[in-house]
This record gives sequence, structure tokens and C-alpha cells, in this order.
Amino acid sequence: MMVFAELIIIGEEILIGQIFDTNSAWIAKMLNEIGISVSQISTVSDNGDHIKRAIKLAEERANIILITGGLGPTRDDITKQTLAEYFNTVLVEDQEVLKSIEDLLSKRAFSMNPLNRKQALVPKNCTPLSNKHGTAPGMLFEKNGKVYVSMPGVPFEMKSIMEDLVLPFLKSKFDAPFIIHRTLIIQGFTESTLSLVLEEWEKSLPHDIKLAYLPSPGMIRLRLTISGANYEKLQEKIYRQILKLEPIIPKAIVSYEEEGIEKVVGELLKNEGMTLASAESCTGGSIATLITSIPGSSEYFKGSVVAYSNEIKHNVLNVSMDSLIKYGAVSKTVVEEMAIGCLQLLKTDYVVATSGIAGPGGGTSEKPVGTTWISVASKGKIISQKYMMGDLRSSNIQQATLTALNMLREMILETAKI
Amino acid sequence: MMVFAELIIIGEEILIGQIFDTNSAWIAKMLNEIGISVSQISTVSDNGDHIKRAIKLAEERANIILITGGLGPTRDDITKQTLAEYFNTVLVEDQEVLKSIEDLLSKRAFSMNPLNRKQALVPKNCTPLSNKHGTAPGMLFEKNGKVYVSMPGVPFEMKSIMEDLVLPFLKSKFDAPFIIHRTLIIQGFTESTLSLVLEEWEKSLPHDIKLAYLPSPGMIRLRLTISGANYEKLQEKIYRQILKLEPIIPKAIVSYEEEGIEKVVGELLKNEGMTLASAESCTGGSIATLITSIPGSSEYFKGSVVAYSNEIKHNVLNVSMDSLIKYGAVSKTVVEEMAIGCLQLLKTDYVVATSGIAGPGGGTSEKPVGTTWISVASKGKIISQKYMMGDLRSSNIQQATLTALNMLREMILETAKI
Repeated sequence: MMVFAELIIIGEEILIGQIFDTNSAWIAKMLNEIGISVSQISTVSDNGDHIKRAIKLAEERANIILITGGLGPTRDDITKQTLAEYFNTVLVEDQEVLKSIEDLLSKRAFSMNPLNRKQALVPKNCTPLSNKHGTAPGMLFEKNGKVYVSMPGVPFEMKSIMEDLVLPFLKSKFDAPFIIHRTLIIQGFTESTLSLVLEEWEKSLPHDIKLAYLPSPGMIRLRLTISGANYEKLQEKIYRQILKLEPIIPKAIVSYEEEGIEKVVGELLKNEGMTLASAESCTGGSIATLITSIPGSSEYFKGSVVAYSNEIKHNVLNVSMDSLIKYGAVSKTVVEEMAIGCLQLLKTDYVVATSGIAGPGGGTSEKPVGTTWISVASKGKIISQKYMMGDLRSSNIQQATLTALNMLREMILETAKI
Repeated sequence: MMVFAELIIIGEEILIGQIFDTNSAWIAKMLNEIGISVSQISTVSDNGDHIKRAIKLAEERANIILITGGLGPTRDDITKQTLAEYFNTVLVEDQEVLKSIEDLLSKRAFSMNPLNRKQALVPKNCTPLSNKHGTAPGMLFEKNGKVYVSMPGVPFEMKSIMEDLVLPFLKSKFDAPFIIHRTLIIQGFTESTLSLVLEEWEKSLPHDIKLAYLPSPGMIRLRLTISGANYEKLQEKIYRQILKLEPIIPKAIVSYEEEGIEKVVGELLKNEGMTLASAESCTGGSIATLITSIPGSSEYFKGSVVAYSNEIKHNVLNVSMDSLIKYGAVSKTVVEEMAIGCLQLLKTDYVVATSGIAGPGGGTSEKPVGTTWISVASKGKIISQKYMMGDLRSSNIQQATLTALNMLREMILETAKI
């Protein structure tokens, strides 16, 4: 039987767009791991009536209601008061909570003020949940077989209450199935072309496997989800379907473990003992930035020449003026000369090079915004490819970056095969 | 009269904790700017009944219901069919939408496949909203004075539909009070040091002005909010408080208009007719990437040498082997030699150079992770500064990037003064 939870996030700062809600994603992930599905997340204002209405609706749909936010010393203790009203009770001072607040404050060399003391007040019929990192306790209620938990919104306080107290409690109370997600990273396809290629495979999927396409510029996350009681059987069932994918899209699967291309390429280079540099025009350093976001990348990444002007393409990368004039900076000839010049200058095993019109300006009818040439080169080998991307600068830069690294991945794999 | 909107986010990937919902914060911000408040955000699964229930509840509480996600060519997308059912109508092929899909595909040199064609189907009684950046159109419905809008979940597609079509429509349809947010970008302070310096100013703020500190690595957004009926008066009231800030933190205000340092520095360089290059070690190309994220940056940005290895610092930037051995790569001498070498090689008016230990590896007791040297140089002038950042790689890279550009901003302003 599926067990459902709903999250209620109390936060004016989220409703005015001041901060992102990152708590929900973390909570959802943790619940999934113990087999509990999140059916809805509701972000509401810190208004008592609004909160009560949200709880009422949530309890009609789910067995577990987790509430974050609206607790704390400086603001109105709106959540606590509201919960006392919702469960028809009053606030009483809890001696254990008071003690833990005293302990926490004395560790930080603070003395207790009246606002701190007020935090030891909790609704009479709740189980207080001790907060190791803050003065606002969590609270757990049970009613008609349903569980309600209220926690502070500060992420590390909420996380420690969840890990230490809430998750173990929910795990023992509900007999939930396992939920397994497997996410593959696919490059080289648009969403619609991928889904056409995978049509037969998708149709033949067992009915209990759910499939989702999650596209972003330059890549697609393909997610398979299954749930049930036998962990090993579920794993095997998903694995069997993923195995069938490889012959259909042999070159497009960048990762079976949701690792980005920068990680995958880094591992390949490390394993082969090879080094990389980039010669970047339209990507403006974005390939180098992505590669060096990985700790330890200095082991295989030597550097980059961002040649944004023709002058630097010529002076530093040794691209011939003739080629620049005759073919233009966005051309096969120039991108290949950039790659070769960089290979010679930075003396690495591989180079990726890009030259394109990222936009919004610079397009012509012959070479519209989005036109991009990418080369991957190693000693004695060079592969170049022209792409027509879109008209959005940031998306073009990201696509070119991911595509260049994917061309590199393919070249490394080809070379390793020989 | 307050005008309320509710957001319904359709996204299994959010409910399982795979991605953060960043769309909501952006939408909330934009609605606030035209005086519309968000009263609730509901994230639901891509299940037709669940979506319909969420819309029904939302329309009881708000006048505007904005829905994102669940559109797209693949079969896991369900929103369109659900909306047709909700509004008691059928899907019909819209010729204008079909045309815009054809245009978009032909620009990218794709041909139309059956899945693309299916995207031209929209509920009969809606106004289709053209999507410049993708094949899934937005849809607008009106019923009993309420407005319902469905948009794709891909952020840049959603944003362009909102900006071009939805926000202007809502602004003209609803007579909402003004909500004015003014956000300043501050660099060179931590949150707590800034709040101490601004203590008196903050205390003297009128009660109807709300203040928020929004820190992120390397910068702080300082946000003032006010709402009311008279736009000019509100603007003036906020402006008067902002004027008082400048004498308190004269060099720290990067922008009064929430423009990032990359935009501000770009404008300065353009106005002065000056050019820039970067010589990057620990930032790994991130300065170049940030600068070139601005359209038209090729006017003042020539390029970058990302010298991740000592070899390249020596071979390309002409850093002496002696200095590398004697002082180490993370030192004043080396970062200055990098800056000067880059100035000579790329022949620009300004260069920023970075060398630091981004982590997690590479730290020593003498130079722990986070140690970073930054230089800014122009012909005949060089300023270098050592910073001790934290132990988180991504945050160190971001701080070094923003700090380097802020040092450049100060040097340009100093030079322009003379």
C-alpha cells in the first residue's frame, strides 16, 4: 500500500519570491527513501486561518502532514498557536524543552531572555521534538491514525530533527513500499526526437514503471520510477529495461547515475591518464568553468584560451588572418585552427574548441544567431560539427558547452576502443 | 484592493526532490512588481484528477491561477488534456501555433515530427500564448472574471511567455496597488558586518518600508519594499532612504538597480572605451563566463587565459619558474606576474588575475583551502589583495569571481576620476 505525505511550507519570503524553497526537495528525497510518496507541497502565508485550512485539506488526502516554518524567537509564534487551536488544546511549558534551550544557550555563552523562554511553550497534546541546533522545538501530533509534524524552517535545524526523530518514527509507524528512481543523462537528442526513437521501448515497459523526460538546454534527464515491496526485484526490473536502452541509443547515454557530462568526461580523462584544454569563443570560458567545478580537475585539465576577439584567435591561437577574413570566425576552418593552435600552445592530449553566434546580436541571414561550430581534436585526429541552436544567449552557451564535452566523450571512447 | 494569485506547479520531479522549484520565486517577484500578491503555491503531481482538484481549490481563493509544467511533446505530459476537460471543451489544432512551431523548427534545421505537430493542439476556448523558445504554447482562459494561465515548466520558455504576454495582460486587467521593491547589490561586506554598519540607518527607516538582507557568496542583495496607491510618492519615499546609504557605504554599492557586477563593469568599460582580459587559475574561467554572459560583451572583453597548471602559467603567461618554486602558485608574486603576462599577451587595458585554493583538496596549514590572491592591473598600475574565503569549492570560486570584478570596478572608477 502506498503511503502519502503532504508538505506545508509556511513562508512569506517564498511567496514574495525572496528565497527558493530548498527544504521541500530534501524532505521529499528523504521520505522517498523510506517508501513514502509526497503527493502535494503547499506553500502558504503565516496566517492562522490559512494554515488551518491547508492542514484540513492535506489530512483529507494524506496520512502524514509535515509543516515547516513559522517557528522562531523573533516572529509571532503563529504556527504553534495555530496548532494548539487546530488540535483544541492550550500551550504549556515543557520542562524538557526548557532544559534543552538552557543547555543550547549556555553552550553558546548566551543567557536566557523572555523570548527564548517562550519557546518552551508547546501544545499540551503534542510530543515535543528536541532541536539540537536551535531554540524552536519540533512538535509531533497523532490523530485518527494520521501523523502531523511541525518543524522550524531553518534548513539545518529541520534536517537534524527529520533525521534523528521524524524519519525513524515514520519508518516504524508506516509499512511503506520501496520507491526506486533511476535517472539517466542523455545528450544528442531533442525531447521529441528521443521520444520517437524510444517509442517502442517505452510501449513495452512494464506498467508499474513510470517514465519521465526532463529536458534542459543541451541534455535530457530520463527517469524511471518503480515501487513495491521487494527491493532487489525492483532494482532488477528497472535494470532489465535500462539494459535494452543501450542498443537503441548506443552513444547518447552520458550517465546511468545522473552524473553530468563534466563528471563523466573527467573520470574518462583520469582513467586514460589524458589531459584536456579548451579554446573557447562563443562559450566564453563556460567549458573551463564547468570542467573545473569538479574537485580534483587540475589532475587532467590544464587550462583554456578564451579567444573572444579575432585578434586573440590570431595572436594567441595562431588562427590565420586569411581564414578569419575568407571564412569568418564562425566556420569550420577557424574552429579547427583554434583547436590545433590550442593543442600546440597548451600541449594537452585533447582540445575542445567552439565558435558560434550566441546572440542576441551578430546574426546574419547566412549565419543566424545560434550557428555554432565545435571541434574536438587530439594529436592526428580532429572532428568538427556545425549546430543550429536557438536564439537565446544563455541557452546557446549552455548547449554548446554540453555538446562540446559530449563530442569529446565520444572521441575518448572511440580512441580507448582501439 | 489586493489582488491575489495562486501558482500551481505540476512537477513529479519536484515532489520526488529531484529538482528545486525556481520558477515560483521568479513568478512571485514579477507578480509583486505589478501589485499582485501570491497567496499560495501548490506543487502537485501530473495526475489529471489531482490537477483539477488543485485548480478548483485555487479558484475559490484567488482571481488569478498560474499553472506551470506538464506541457511538452512526450506522453508523460498531461496538463493540456486536463485543462480541456476542466473547461468542458475539446482540443483543436491552432493554425498560428502550428505556424510558430514550424518556424521554430525550421530555424533549428529540424523537420516537424508527429509529436511536434500534436503540440499545435490546444483547448478550443483558450487564447494560445506563443512560445518563442519552445514548441509547447502557453494557454490563457477566462471564466467568471478569473484568469487561468498554463505555461511550460522550462524556465526560459515560461519567463518569456510571462514577460511578453501574461504580465502585460494581468496588469491591464486588474487594478492592483503598487508593490515596489528596490534591490541594491552590495559587495565587500559580510551580512553581519553590513548590518552593524547600517544599524542606525535601519532603525530610522519609516515603518512602512520593509528591509531584507539576501546574502549569497561574494555579495548581498539589500531589498527595500513598500506598497500603496501613489506610485510616485512610494518611489520618492524609498529613494530618500537610499540616498542616505551612499555616505555610509560609499564604495560598496555596486548597483542601485539589482544589476550584477558583470553588467556594471561592462557598462563602465564601454563608457570608458576600455578593454578587459582575465588570467584565471582558481576561478577556472568563471570570470570570463560571467563577463560574456552579457550580450555585446565582445565590445570590451577580448579573452582569457585559464592557466590551471603551473606549466601554462609559465609557458603562456610568462610567469617565472623561480617565482612558482619560491612563492608557490598561490602568492602575490605569481598572481601579479599572471596579470602582467596577460596584459602583454592579450594587449588589453585591464586584466584581472586570480590564484587560490578552491578546495576541497590542496590546502596546507600555511595556505588553507580558501586562500586566494587577486590582482587587477592596467598599464603602469597593479593592485593585489589576499582573501581568506571558506571551505566550500563552489562558494570560493563565486566569491573570487565577484571580488575580482569588484576590485576592477574600483580601479576603473579611481582611474576615471583622475
